[in-house]
Amino acid sequence: MKKKVEQISFKARDIISIQDLTREEILYLMEKGKDMYTEEQSGNRYTNSLGKKVLFHAFYQDSTRTINSFNAAMQELGGIVRGFSGKEGTSVMKKECIRDTIVMAEATHADIIVMRHPKDGSVQWAADVAHVPVINGGDGTNEHPTQALLDLFTMYLINNDKLDNVNVGIGGDLAHGRTIRSLCAALSNFDDITIRWAADDILGMPDDVTRCLKKRNVAVIRHKQVKDVLRQVMFYYMTRPQFEMMSGNPVENQKKILKLLDVYRITLEKITGHNFKLMHPLPVNSETREIDYQVYFSAQQHFFTQAENGVFMRKALLDEILEGTIYERFTGILPDEIRIGNNRLKRRIKARRKEGRFIDNIHGGIVLDHLMPKTEDKVKETLKLACGDCDIISAYLHDSDKSFVKTSVTYLDERGLKMVCMCSPDPTVNIIHNGHVHEKYVYLLCRNDNCITRVLEEDVPPRFYKDDGNIKCRYCRHTYEVSNPNMAQFERKHFLATLPSSVIPVGK
Amino acid sequence: MKKKVEQISFKARDIISIQDLTREEILYLMEKGKDMYTEEQSGNRYTNSLGKKVLFHAFYQDSTRTINSFNAAMQELGGIVRGFSGKEGTSVMKKECIRDTIVMAEATHADIIVMRHPKDGSVQWAADVAHVPVINGGDGTNEHPTQALLDLFTMYLINNDKLDNVNVGIGGDLAHGRTIRSLCAALSNFDDITIRWAADDILGMPDDVTRCLKKRNVAVIRHKQVKDVLRQVMFYYMTRPQFEMMSGNPVENQKKILKLLDVYRITLEKITGHNFKLMHPLPVNSETREIDYQVYFSAQQHFFTQAENGVFMRKALLDEILEGTIYERFTGILPDEIRIGNNRLKRRIKARRKEGRFIDNIHGGIVLDHLMPKTEDKVKETLKLACGDCDIISAYLHDSDKSFVKTSVTYLDERGLKMVCMCSPDPTVNIIHNGHVHEKYVYLLCRNDNCITRVLEEDVPPRFYKDDGNIKCRYCRHTYEVSNPNMAQFERKHFLATLPSSVIPVGK
Amino acid sequence: MKKKVEQISFKARDIISIQDLTREEILYLMEKGKDMYTEEQSGNRYTNSLGKKVLFHAFYQDSTRTINSFNAAMQELGGIVRGFSGKEGTSVMKKECIRDTIVMAEATHADIIVMRHPKDGSVQWAADVAHVPVINGGDGTNEHPTQALLDLFTMYLINNDKLDNVNVGIGGDLAHGRTIRSLCAALSNFDDITIRWAADDILGMPDDVTRCLKKRNVAVIRHKQVKDVLRQVMFYYMTRPQFEMMSGNPVENQKKILKLLDVYRITLEKITGHNFKLMHPLPVNSETREIDYQVYFSAQQHFFTQAENGVFMRKALLDEILEGTIYERFTGILPDEIRIGNNRLKRRIKARRKEGRFIDNIHGGIVLDHLMPKTEDKVKETLKLACGDCDIISAYLHDSDKSFVKTSVTYLDERGLKMVCMCSPDPTVNIIHNGHVHEKYVYLLCRNDNCITRVLEEDVPPRFYKDDGNIKCRYCRHTYEVSNPNMAQFERKHFLATLPSSVIPVGK
Repeated sequence: MKKKVEQISFKARDIISIQDLTREEILYLMEKGKDMYTEEQSGNRYTNSLGKKVLFHAFYQDSTRTINSFNAAMQELGGIVRGFSGKEGTSVMKKECIRDTIVMAEATHADIIVMRHPKDGSVQWAADVAHVPVINGGDGTNEHPTQALLDLFTMYLINNDKLDNVNVGIGGDLAHGRTIRSLCAALSNFDDITIRWAADDILGMPDDVTRCLKKRNVAVIRHKQVKDVLRQVMFYYMTRPQFEMMSGNPVENQKKILKLLDVYRITLEKITGHNFKLMHPLPVNSETREIDYQVYFSAQQHFFTQAENGVFMRKALLDEILEGTIYERFTGILPDEIRIGNNRLKRRIKARRKEGRFIDNIHGGIVLDHLMPKTEDKVKETLKLACGDCDIISAYLHDSDKSFVKTSVTYLDERGLKMVCMCSPDPTVNIIHNGHVHEKYVYLLCRNDNCITRVLEEDVPPRFYKDDGNIKCRYCRHTYEVSNPNMAQFERKHFLATLPSSVIPVGK
Repeated sequence: MKKKVEQISFKARDIISIQDLTREEILYLMEKGKDMYTEEQSGNRYTNSLGKKVLFHAFYQDSTRTINSFNAAMQELGGIVRGFSGKEGTSVMKKECIRDTIVMAEATHADIIVMRHPKDGSVQWAADVAHVPVINGGDGTNEHPTQALLDLFTMYLINNDKLDNVNVGIGGDLAHGRTIRSLCAALSNFDDITIRWAADDILGMPDDVTRCLKKRNVAVIRHKQVKDVLRQVMFYYMTRPQFEMMSGNPVENQKKILKLLDVYRITLEKITGHNFKLMHPLPVNSETREIDYQVYFSAQQHFFTQAENGVFMRKALLDEILEGTIYERFTGILPDEIRIGNNRLKRRIKARRKEGRFIDNIHGGIVLDHLMPKTEDKVKETLKLACGDCDIISAYLHDSDKSFVKTSVTYLDERGLKMVCMCSPDPTVNIIHNGHVHEKYVYLLCRNDNCITRVLEEDVPPRFYKDDGNIKCRYCRHTYEVSNPNMAQFERKHFLATLPSSVIPVGK
Repeated sequence: MKKKVEQISFKARDIISIQDLTREEILYLMEKGKDMYTEEQSGNRYTNSLGKKVLFHAFYQDSTRTINSFNAAMQELGGIVRGFSGKEGTSVMKKECIRDTIVMAEATHADIIVMRHPKDGSVQWAADVAHVPVINGGDGTNEHPTQALLDLFTMYLINNDKLDNVNVGIGGDLAHGRTIRSLCAALSNFDDITIRWAADDILGMPDDVTRCLKKRNVAVIRHKQVKDVLRQVMFYYMTRPQFEMMSGNPVENQKKILKLLDVYRITLEKITGHNFKLMHPLPVNSETREIDYQVYFSAQQHFFTQAENGVFMRKALLDEILEGTIYERFTGILPDEIRIGNNRLKRRIKARRKEGRFIDNIHGGIVLDHLMPKTEDKVKETLKLACGDCDIISAYLHDSDKSFVKTSVTYLDERGLKMVCMCSPDPTVNIIHNGHVHEKYVYLLCRNDNCITRVLEEDVPPRFYKDDGNIKCRYCRHTYEVSNPNMAQFERKHFLATLPSSVIPVGK
């Protein structure tokens, strides 16, 4: 193995998004993976480098490949595996939240946690909670970084140990699902990358991915027909239609996609004469079969090789992250960082609790302002649900086309604020004191419906960061579209650790 | 480690109820647990003391914490784990009874079995069946002894290695669920224990627990408000509302409890200024959240420490039970004890089978007597179901306000008798021979609806023992309320191994 | 252990059907099993003969006994176990087919695969796909060879280490379920075997089993009453009624069988005085209880011994199959054999695609001939489903009492052909070229409804072989009843590896 570049270290790191890895780090893992692969070829499948360290798999969602690949990797390095696969039979059924399940994994001596969950950003949250490293085994529609790594590794081995100058076609469903996103992001680290695709609009490459790739000098070329793509690429990366992720009528979607599939399905006829390598993250859907049976026997087929490469890549990763670390004593204390952002507003509001109940000429209470037009009734009902009986007056202001809600409520916790946001995004929260606006905040909640921060029971604090001019959710990494005019004042400083980024104080 | 007290040995013992452990035994386990904890702190997580012994987990019910904690403990001692978690995918789906599943675990070389099951007494039954030791991982609403041990262990470590002179508050749902019961029973072994609580009647401490504690010199003090409890305790033990265990309308219950929760929920505000340690068996219900999020970060929070302490306590227990034992050759023969009680009555009845069919002037058959008033029709139908076609006459005797059923049935097995009991508890069974009462029995079946002896398919023989004047079920340990006047003759001797305690012969 | 007979080797073999094992091979395994048993008795439960080889269990169906027994065996030999039990939580939920799941198991370094699946022939298919050995842990109603081996082993140990001259009674449900079939086939390898049974017709021994046994010189004797059987046998093998496998109304079946059960149930009364050994593959159904509780304690009971013997037999088998082999490098390439048979017809048809669309005087297209009378409409609809819009003419020919379908379809893949077969078995497929029949085939699909080849999504190629004059399905091994007169020409050569046995070219 080549000497490790000085500044590269995976020790004790979380692996949440492929975007967190640099070109150098990816290449380092490729080399390490190749070492693992070479050792395997020399008949040395097993080492004892990880002693009896414990990998805990917290798989809230179906998996055969990822979980077994991680288990194989861990066991071949001398480690032990524990955990659960599927919520059935676990305390999740008793409504345990992610935070508590993750702490429990630590308390029972996990040295590393691999997690898969249906919600975007959920694994970032787990990593925030845990003291031990966490690897993302797939979070919602968001990311699956070890899949991207093994995809790259497959290309790396075929492309003579390099990842520059690669010409990749991608097919199937580019719009939904996490694999394409991660792969594109990963490839964009390298030079002379061309990505070609041909698909109907509803399955096509999302605009934000295209923009992002172009900005990083990746050539993205849309072709009219799949055959034009197949002619010109070294790798063709096929994916299955993610019906479950599409919005709209599921039966109609299925019908529409099935028709398109006849066009996009990879058949022996279509690939004959080309010598690209056909990749697929698997599983292939055996009902709709985006890859025809005959193709499995072709020289182009490389998806089974991908599956095996996953073991080497995961061995490399586990070894790097755990190497040299000794297990941590669990303290029973949650990391300080995850408390930031939660309930800060609540505490401020609370301080003024018992004052005034007179509404019209409000003395003490909350005014929710800058609500979306005509959402006032929904917000009112929500507040009643969250706070019990309270006096509420609401109105729609015709002239400014916005709504507001005045209430005698003096106590509103974060779940309540989130519920308000679900009716009307980023409301301004005015805290009234002695009939005057004492403090004024904008409350932000990520707008991605599938984001973990929107699951009330999980109590994940909404947090944001600025990335290249955009405000992004810390968890699902979706860009936040600001609608509240008060948000113009949103600054970098609002993301400092000491100030919860979901509560932005604005001028009176 | 201190020297083991001569008479204390856990070798090959079942751990079914915390009530089976003495003060000395508990303290011995505490010391042993502390040794495990100290070893861990010195960096010695792994030993090889259990060679490759096998722990088999038979978890019929949801668990993440308990099962992982046991698995961690076993693996850290050098053992192997096998088993199932959740009935899905097991032969339980093919209607295999507990007895057969447990024997199968033994036949596939389990050295120790940890079991969780929704029915009270089920694990005692498994222990009766198995030749290897069985540990109760939670049976219905009944017991969860290793939880009680880890709770005590957490207190022990904090309280300078002793358990006397402890002042504990308990909160949440004291009425349902097994944790509070076990904890109280465990604490009652020690001196100068005070237990304080404040709760609405429907969630309050059950009278039998209070009585039992007082008898053992535990001071039980009910306060008006939770804050009065919080002010005066070293530990506050919170639990979640066990909606699934409450009788009555579930929606109404939920509503009522949710309202109460606002009063009983532990919030940062309520605990600020106090320095008790907050405990909880976990999981916290993330929907109803009996503990507010902010409390997780407080200095009072100790439930995550509890979770980790579980590993040490279980290591101590497994090591003690399995230490020095060598695995047993499985013989394929069930223990003699578990046949006692079953079908004894049946065999007697059978002996008189083919005689008489004339009912009114009955020659041969069974008369069920001392039935609850007006249950005769239900009993009649039950007998037809259990025995097929037979002549039956039933009547309600107005003067004595009781019912009886005469039948030509000469064969009635234990499932049939249990079915009769479910209509009318402890019937007198008169066996008629040549027109005369030849033998006369009272048949007892535990009245706890959730007791394993009431699950017909499990064939568990009802058995009872006398404890301090009360008749108790061997399995769920509920006190048996005798209604049949013939039962006055119920004596210690009826519990001898040779006589089934569920069939009490009474004078003619 | 005796010296291995030169020609006997289990190295790297699949174990799919007990019928694939010879008398000598079975006896060899018995001896090896006895060695394992003897070692266990001497206290040597663990060896390290299998290093860290990996057993992967792919259990698509409920199991406790088989999976734990295999896991115990593998772990006691020093191996590692991985896999899944129950489809819940696996990629099967995402419609992954068997082929891909099996390849994935290999890609994650399985050294041997044990599989259970609800469909007949599914495990043979898995073995065709895999490069590593596959053991059948039960496929549908078909086979469960390791159960048969452990049954034989139990008899072998009791019968002084031999299997000749055995007198066996079988009871319960002889008609449905795989255990009886496998056991009878296994016994038929030995000399002086007598099989006795007494059962109602609907539960009785299937005719084909009886015929097959008689041909192999096994005496099969049907008695009027169970008690006549019990009097005369060394072993009585009881099974549970397989309600789920019976055709017809399930409620009516249950009722009928429950009545019969009263007659066939094994009770203490019935077995008293006899000294046969009572066997049962387990689980006993605790609801219908084909074996009464009291019998569990009798000297006759041997089913728990069977359960333990399973571990020794599986240790013997795993050791033999894996001994001395080193793990295979997975290549990512599917075995050539499994591509044979698929899509061959399709490719031929495809070659003539774009020609003619005129139907009545058909120039290019397909004529489906020799259809079952009056199935033409169903076939027509099927074709529309499979091929989209196309011109179709169909007719029922009164004089010859058969139907045909003419179509302009020039492309029909194997799933489409299978769908046609499900309407009308073995159709003749005429490929029309320039208005003339250019080629003519008969397409065969196994008629066993539960055969894996009939599950469209699995893409299993129908394949057949000749066995003693009968045509049999390679997967489920059911005999194929030929109805198409063109099939008279069906010859051994049609099963050559180079020609797909499901497509039989016939003369014009």
